[in-house]
Amino acid sequence: MVIAEPSTRAYAAEPNTLSSRYAAVRAATEALAAPLSAEDQQVQSMPDVSPTKWHLAHTTWFFETFLLGPELQGYEPFDPAFHYLFNSYYEAEGPRQPRPERGLITRPSLERVLAYRAHVDAGMARLLASGSAGRVADLVELGLNHEQQHQELILMDIKHVLSRNPLKPAYHAAPAAASREPAPLRWQAFPAGLRQIGHGGDGFAFDNERPRHRVYLEAFEIADRLTTCGEYLGFIEDGGYRRPELWLSDGWAMVQAEGWTAPLYWSGGEDGWRMFSLHGERPVDPAEPVCHLSHYEADAYARWAAARLPTEAEWETAAGSSALEDSGGLHPSSDAGGEGLRQLGGQVWQWTASAYLPYPRFRTAPGAVGEYNGKFMSGQMALRGSACVTPPGHARITYRNFFPPQARWAFAGVRLARDA
Amino acid sequence: MVIAEPSTRAYAAEPNTLSSRYAAVRAATEALAAPLSAEDQQVQSMPDVSPTKWHLAHTTWFFETFLLGPELQGYEPFDPAFHYLFNSYYEAEGPRQPRPERGLITRPSLERVLAYRAHVDAGMARLLASGSAGRVADLVELGLNHEQQHQELILMDIKHVLSRNPLKPAYHAAPAAASREPAPLRWQAFPAGLRQIGHGGDGFAFDNERPRHRVYLEAFEIADRLTTCGEYLGFIEDGGYRRPELWLSDGWAMVQAEGWTAPLYWSGGEDGWRMFSLHGERPVDPAEPVCHLSHYEADAYARWAAARLPTEAEWETAAGSSALEDSGGLHPSSDAGGEGLRQLGGQVWQWTASAYLPYPRFRTAPGAVGEYNGKFMSGQMALRGSACVTPPGHARITYRNFFPPQARWAFAGVRLARDA
Amino acid sequence: MVIAEPSTRAYAAEPNTLSSRYAAVRAATEALAAPLSAEDQQVQSMPDVSPTKWHLAHTTWFFETFLLGPELQGYEPFDPAFHYLFNSYYEAEGPRQPRPERGLITRPSLERVLAYRAHVDAGMARLLASGSAGRVADLVELGLNHEQQHQELILMDIKHVLSRNPLKPAYHAAPAAASREPAPLRWQAFPAGLRQIGHGGDGFAFDNERPRHRVYLEAFEIADRLTTCGEYLGFIEDGGYRRPELWLSDGWAMVQAEGWTAPLYWSGGEDGWRMFSLHGERPVDPAEPVCHLSHYEADAYARWAAARLPTEAEWETAAGSSALEDSGGLHPSSDAGGEGLRQLGGQVWQWTASAYLPYPRFRTAPGAVGEYNGKFMSGQMALRGSACVTPPGHARITYRNFFPPQARWAFAGVRLARDA
Amino acid sequence: MVIAEPSTRAYAAEPNTLSSRYAAVRAATEALAAPLSAEDQQVQSMPDVSPTKWHLAHTTWFFETFLLGPELQGYEPFDPAFHYLFNSYYEAEGPRQPRPERGLITRPSLERVLAYRAHVDAGMARLLASGSAGRVADLVELGLNHEQQHQELILMDIKHVLSRNPLKPAYHAAPAAASREPAPLRWQAFPAGLRQIGHGGDGFAFDNERPRHRVYLEAFEIADRLTTCGEYLGFIEDGGYRRPELWLSDGWAMVQAEGWTAPLYWSGGEDGWRMFSLHGERPVDPAEPVCHLSHYEADAYARWAAARLPTEAEWETAAGSSALEDSGGLHPSSDAGGEGLRQLGGQVWQWTASAYLPYPRFRTAPGAVGEYNGKFMSGQMALRGSACVTPPGHARITYRNFFPPQARWAFAGVRLARDA
Repeated sequence: MVIAEPSTRAYAAEPNTLSSRYAAVRAATEALAAPLSAEDQQVQSMPDVSPTKWHLAHTTWFFETFLLGPELQGYEPFDPAFHYLFNSYYEAEGPRQPRPERGLITRPSLERVLAYRAHVDAGMARLLASGSAGRVADLVELGLNHEQQHQELILMDIKHVLSRNPLKPAYHAAPAAASREPAPLRWQAFPAGLRQIGHGGDGFAFDNERPRHRVYLEAFEIADRLTTCGEYLGFIEDGGYRRPELWLSDGWAMVQAEGWTAPLYWSGGEDGWRMFSLHGERPVDPAEPVCHLSHYEADAYARWAAARLPTEAEWETAAGSSALEDSGGLHPSSDAGGEGLRQLGGQVWQWTASAYLPYPRFRTAPGAVGEYNGKFMSGQMALRGSACVTPPGHARITYRNFFPPQARWAFAGVRLARDA
Repeated sequence: MVIAEPSTRAYAAEPNTLSSRYAAVRAATEALAAPLSAEDQQVQSMPDVSPTKWHLAHTTWFFETFLLGPELQGYEPFDPAFHYLFNSYYEAEGPRQPRPERGLITRPSLERVLAYRAHVDAGMARLLASGSAGRVADLVELGLNHEQQHQELILMDIKHVLSRNPLKPAYHAAPAAASREPAPLRWQAFPAGLRQIGHGGDGFAFDNERPRHRVYLEAFEIADRLTTCGEYLGFIEDGGYRRPELWLSDGWAMVQAEGWTAPLYWSGGEDGWRMFSLHGERPVDPAEPVCHLSHYEADAYARWAAARLPTEAEWETAAGSSALEDSGGLHPSSDAGGEGLRQLGGQVWQWTASAYLPYPRFRTAPGAVGEYNGKFMSGQMALRGSACVTPPGHARITYRNFFPPQARWAFAGVRLARDA
Repeated sequence: MVIAEPSTRAYAAEPNTLSSRYAAVRAATEALAAPLSAEDQQVQSMPDVSPTKWHLAHTTWFFETFLLGPELQGYEPFDPAFHYLFNSYYEAEGPRQPRPERGLITRPSLERVLAYRAHVDAGMARLLASGSAGRVADLVELGLNHEQQHQELILMDIKHVLSRNPLKPAYHAAPAAASREPAPLRWQAFPAGLRQIGHGGDGFAFDNERPRHRVYLEAFEIADRLTTCGEYLGFIEDGGYRRPELWLSDGWAMVQAEGWTAPLYWSGGEDGWRMFSLHGERPVDPAEPVCHLSHYEADAYARWAAARLPTEAEWETAAGSSALEDSGGLHPSSDAGGEGLRQLGGQVWQWTASAYLPYPRFRTAPGAVGEYNGKFMSGQMALRGSACVTPPGHARITYRNFFPPQARWAFAGVRLARDA
Repeated sequence: MVIAEPSTRAYAAEPNTLSSRYAAVRAATEALAAPLSAEDQQVQSMPDVSPTKWHLAHTTWFFETFLLGPELQGYEPFDPAFHYLFNSYYEAEGPRQPRPERGLITRPSLERVLAYRAHVDAGMARLLASGSAGRVADLVELGLNHEQQHQELILMDIKHVLSRNPLKPAYHAAPAAASREPAPLRWQAFPAGLRQIGHGGDGFAFDNERPRHRVYLEAFEIADRLTTCGEYLGFIEDGGYRRPELWLSDGWAMVQAEGWTAPLYWSGGEDGWRMFSLHGERPVDPAEPVCHLSHYEADAYARWAAARLPTEAEWETAAGSSALEDSGGLHPSSDAGGEGLRQLGGQVWQWTASAYLPYPRFRTAPGAVGEYNGKFMSGQMALRGSACVTPPGHARITYRNFFPPQARWAFAGVRLARDA
C-alpha cells in the first residue's frame, strides 16, 4: 500500500528577499504534507509525535502570535480558539492543548488549517510589503528557521505514525538506491589547544549557538565517515544488546525495560534484518549510515568499538574547515563520498558526548521567544551535523540539535572519536 | 463549530425480508457516519473507544468472516490484511490489531473502508439471493444485531471523541427541546413469588438472554420513571461526591482517584452546570433523565435516596407487561410521558444491582461466535432497557447490556427500586 | 534457613464464657506471630498484604475503638496516635494510614504494639467482668470473629512476605506428610427446587450471611472432593495457560499481562514443579488440593474439565447436611478422607460462580461497624468453605468469603459442579 | 517519640595505619546504625532508599567480594547466598536482588548481618596483618571510601524512612542550636583564563576526579556563602513555585506532577513553615542553609535571584585555595562563620550547572570495580563540596558527587554564581 507519486521534495531554494524566502519555506512545508491524507495528518502515535496537521497549524501560529498580532496594524486573528490549540510550549502565551492530546483535535479540519495558513500568509505578505527590518526581520527569520525545524519533524513524526500501521505503508514509494560499499573508516587527528566554538557572526543562528567562546581541547581523533549498518550489525552479532558492561547504567535499564535488540524500525533478526523507512519496508543495507539510535546505543556501540563519541567542541573543531553537505532525501544514503572528513551533514545527526547545556554567557531573548531553547537545557544530549530530512540550507557547523538520551525517532547515528 | 445539517437518523424500519432488512441496517450505519469527516472517524480518544471508521470496517468483517468466507462459494476477500486489522476480540479468528491501537490505522482510508462495505454488501446480496435459512439466516440475524450494537457504539464513541476537543463541537446541531417537568416519582409494587425471566421464544435473542428460567423474588417496588438530572443535583448539592458512607469501597476509590464531582460530560459546578451532548454544550436540564453515570454513582445515588438499584430479575419482572419504547434520538428526553411504568426504553440504560453472569444452563455457540458474550461474564454489571442512541427495534425486555462498574461513556442512568 | 521450632498452632479451643473465649482468641493471635522476628513482622510485600505487627495492632484497635472507648467508663486510650495508624478502612472513624503504607510504620515497635495489646486486654477484662450482654456482647463477638479473620490473614500475608525473599525461608519447618492418593472424583446429584440459604439462626454470623432467603435451583451435581494438584497439572500440561478459549476475557488478559503459567508459589515447570509453602519450598504433591488459584484460573480449569464452578446457593445446598471440617494446619492435606461430600472445610476456600453481592433484604448495622462487609459488595467473587489456615471453629456452612477474581494469595482452590 | 540518647557521631579520626583506619571506619558505620531498631533498619521507603541493614551488609560484601575472595587464601564466605543479596549494581558480579526489593529481605536478621560484619572484619584483619600494599591497599582504601559514602547514605535514607512515619520520630533528639543571622552575601570575583581542575596527586581520589586537566573559564563571581532558608523563603513568597518562566521545562513538569511548593521535608506553609530533620520536626530556621532541593529548584532559585549555579570548574577554581570544612553533624548549621569563601564543606552539597560527565581521558579501572562511577555518567548533575552528614575527612575540593536533577533526599542546597 503506497501513496500516489509524491511531489518532489520542494524545499526552499535560496531566494533573495525575505518575502520570497518566506513564500518558499511555507510552500515547502505544504509540499511535505501533500502526499498525506487528512487521516494520516490527524494521528499522534506517541506523546512525542505531533500530527502533521498540528505542525501545519503551529508553524502558522508562530507567525500570527509573534509577528502579526504585535506588528501588523488591524490584523484580525483567523480564529481566537487557535491561540490555545496550537501553542506548543510557550508558557508566556498562556495555557495550551496538552502535548499528548494534540491528536484529539479532529476539528478544525485539515482544510480549515490550510485556510488558516493562507490567512496568515496574506497577513505576512502585507507586513513584509511594508518593509521589514530590525526586530521584525529577525523574528521572521526565526519563524522561518522554526518552520524548517518542523519540516524535519513532520517527516520524523509521520515515519513513526506509518510504522505503527501493520500494513507498513510508505510515505513515498521509491526503489532502493544501489548500495555502495564505503571506504574503510580512517581517523583524522587534531592536536591539543585552545579553540573557539559557537556562532559569532552576523548571520542567523539560534540563541543556543551563541556566544562564540574559548574551550581547551586535548588532542583527539575523529572518524572521517559515519558508522554503517554493517558495522553496527557487528555489534549486534557480538551480543552488544546482551552485554551490560558496554552500556551506561540508564541505557542498560532501557535495553531491559524496552526489550531493545536493534535500532528503532529494524525487525527480523536472524531471519534477515529489515527496516521500515519512508520508502516502506526493505532489507537493511549494510553500507548505509546506521540511523534511529538512542544516545545509549550510540555510546554502547562506541565503547564496543574501542572508541567514544566526540564532544560538541571536538566535532565543531574538526568540522571547522569542512562544508556541511545537504541532502534533501528521505533516507540516509550509502554513498559515503570520497576522501577526507565527510558526511557531516545531510545523512544522520551525530550524537555527541556532551550534555545540552548553555554556553558560557548564554542569554535568552526577552519575552516568550526566550523560551525557544533555553528552558530545554536539562536532561538532553547534543547532536551535531544534520540529517537527510533536514531542509537544505537549514543547518550550520555551529548548529546544536538535542534529544533526550533515550529518544530513537530522530534520524540520529554515530560518528566515532577517540583520544589521540 | 457545528457540522452542516445532518441527515436524519435513518435507522432501519422493519422490512419484511432478510435482504431488505440487511440493506436497511447497513444503510443506517453509514447514515450515522455521514456527518463525520474522515478525521473525526479516525481518532480513538481512549482505549475503550473505537474510531467510527473501525466500526464501519469491523461490522463488515463480521459478515465477511462468519458468512461470506465459509458460505459463499468463490468469495474473494476484499483485502486479506483486513482479517487482522478489523477482528475485534475473536481469539479463534487469530491475532488482531490491539484494541488501544485501533486509532493508528490511518490506512486503509475511509474511502477504502466504504469500498470494503460495498464489496461485502455485494457478496451478501449474492448469498442472500441464493436463499438463506437455518444457520446462515441465524448468522445474518446475529450480524445485523451485532451491527446495531455498533451503531450505538458509534454514537457513544464519537460523543467521547468530540468531548475531548476543546472546541466542543456538536455531532448534530439542534435546538434544545422544551423542558417538561416530570410527574413525581411513584412506586409500583410487586409481590414475592417464583417468576420466570430470560428469553424462551423463537425470535432472535442473544445467547446471554437464554434460557428462560425460574427465579424467586421477594416483594419489591420499582420507580415508575427514571431519575432526573434535577434529582441527581440534589445528591450533588447534599455532598454526595464527598460522603464516603454513600459509596461502595471501589466506587469511593474511583471518586478520589479520578476527582469525580458530577456525571461524565458535566462541567461548571456552582457557576451553573452545563453538559456536553451530541448537540454540543448546553445547560443541564433538570427534567431530563440523568445520564453518563457509572454503576458506582448510580448505586451511591440510590443509597442517598433511601432506595437501591433493581436486580435484573426485578426489572424484567416489572417490565414484563410493558412495552419497551424506542426513541431514535441523540439525547434523553425530558418528556417522561404519562402514567404507569414508563421510560423503560429509548432514554438511558438502567444500571441493575446484578453482576453480569451466565443464566443457569447458559450455553455458548460452538466456534468463534461462541466468544460473542460468554467470555465477558466477569467484572461487569448488567444494565436493562435501552437508550436514546439504541437503534429502534433492537432491544427487548429480556435484553442484557453490560459494562464495568466504572464505565461512564455509555448512556446509562438510574431507575430506583426498594424492598416492599 | 528455618526458624526455630515453632509453638504449636494454639488456636482457641471452645471455652465457655466470653471472657475465656476472648483470652483464648487473643492468645492464639500472638502465638501465630511468635515465630516471627520484629523484622518479619514489619514488612509489606505488596499493597494487599499487611505487616504482622499491623495485624496485631489493628485487631486491638477494633476492641479499643468499638468497645473500650464507647463502653468502658474512664478508659484512657493507650496512645491517641494509634487511632490514625491502625484504622483499616472505617471511613466513619476518620482518616487513616494509607493501606499501601502500612509497612512504613517502623515505630511503634513490635514491643510497644504488644504492650498496646496488654493494655487493651486489661481494659477488656474490666469491661467483661462488669457483665456483658446485648450490644456489648455482640460487639465482642464481632471483634473475636474479626480477630480470627486476621489470624488467617497473618498466615496468608506472611506466606507472601517470605515467598519474596530469595532465601525462601519457612515459617515453620516440618517434614512433608506422606502423600495419599485420593479416590476418583464422584458427583453428588441434587434435584431442582426451591431452597433456602443464608443464616437464620441465633448464633453469631456476619451480616453478609443474612437474611435466610429462598432461591430456586435447577438440578445440579457437585464434586465430592476438591480438585488436586495432579488434576490441575493435567490442565497445565494440556496447554491450559496458552489456550484463550478456556478463559474469561479478563482472565486471559491477566495470564498475558502477568505471565501466569501455574498457581502462585509454583516454580520449576518442566524441570519438576516445586511450590513455596509455610513449611518452605518443596515438590508439588499431586495428591494435595490445588491452592493459590485466582478465580480466573479456577474458572478456566473447570471449563477445561467440562464442568463449571458451583454457585453459592448450590454449594450451600449441597453442604447443608454435612459438617465443615476444621484443620488448623498450615498447608492443605493430601488426605481427602473417605466417602461422601468432603473437604468442605479446613483445606482450601472454594471459588464459586457467584459474584459477592448482598442477599435480598440485606441490612448493614448502623455506624462504623456497618462498613464491615457491605461496602465491599462490588467487583469480588464469593468463596465458600474454609481453609487450613482458617482458625478452627471460625467458619460455617453459610459463611461467605470474598476476593477479587485476580487475587491469588488466599488459600483458594476448586470444587467442581455441573448441570445435572 | 524519640529514641534513647544516641551514641556520639563516632566517625573515624585519622589513624595512622590501614588496619586502624579500617577498624575506625567500620566502627563508625555501626555507631550510626546503633540508635535504630531492627525494624527501623528493615524498611525501604522508596526505591532510591536502601534499608540500614542492607547498607551494613553491602559495605561488608564489598570487602568480601573484592578483597577476601580473591586475596585471602582459604577464606570461606560467610554465606554464599549473600553474594546475590548484597550486590548493589556490579553486573560483572552476576545477578542480584533488585534494588526496589531490598526491603523484602527480612532474613538474614540484623543480628546475622552484624555477625557477617564480624566474620569479614576478622578476615580483613588477617589480610591486613599479612602486609598490604599495591593493589590490595588500593582496594582497601576504595572499600573504606565506599563505606564512608554509605555512612552518608544511611543518614540520608533513614531520614526519608522516618519522615514517612506519621509520628515523625527523631533519629537523635537534640535541642535546636541558637540561630545566627549570617552576614550579607558577598561575591568573590575570578578572572578569565586557562585553569586546571581534577585530582592529579598521589593520595586517594575516585576515578571520576581524574585526570587533572585544563579548562578555559570566562570571568565569573561566586557567592561567599550558601543560600539560606530565609533567602529561599523570599523565592517561595514571590510565587517561585507558580512561575514557569523561572524553571527549566523538565523542572516545571515536576513541580506540577509532584505538587512541589517547598523543599522536601518542609510543611505548614502559611501557618508557619516547619521541617522534618534527623532531630525531629521543628520550625524552619531562616539562618540555616537551605537543604533538600532538587537541581530544578536550585536552578529556578538562582534564576529568580538574577544569578546562576556555578559550573564544576568554577566551583573548583574558586575553592582551590580554601579548606573544605568538616562538620559531623546531623543538620546544616546556621553558623556561617566569618569572612571569605566559606561553607564549602560540612553543610550541604552544592548543585552545579554541570552535567556529571567524564573528564577528558577519563579511564575506568578494569573488572567489576570499573563499574564504580563511570556507568552512571548520564542523566545526572554534579554537586560539589560536602554535607553535614558526610563523614569528616571523606571529601575533597576535587570530589564529584552526583544525583539526578529531580532527586531531593540528598542534603543538597545552593551556592550562587554569576558572570563577571
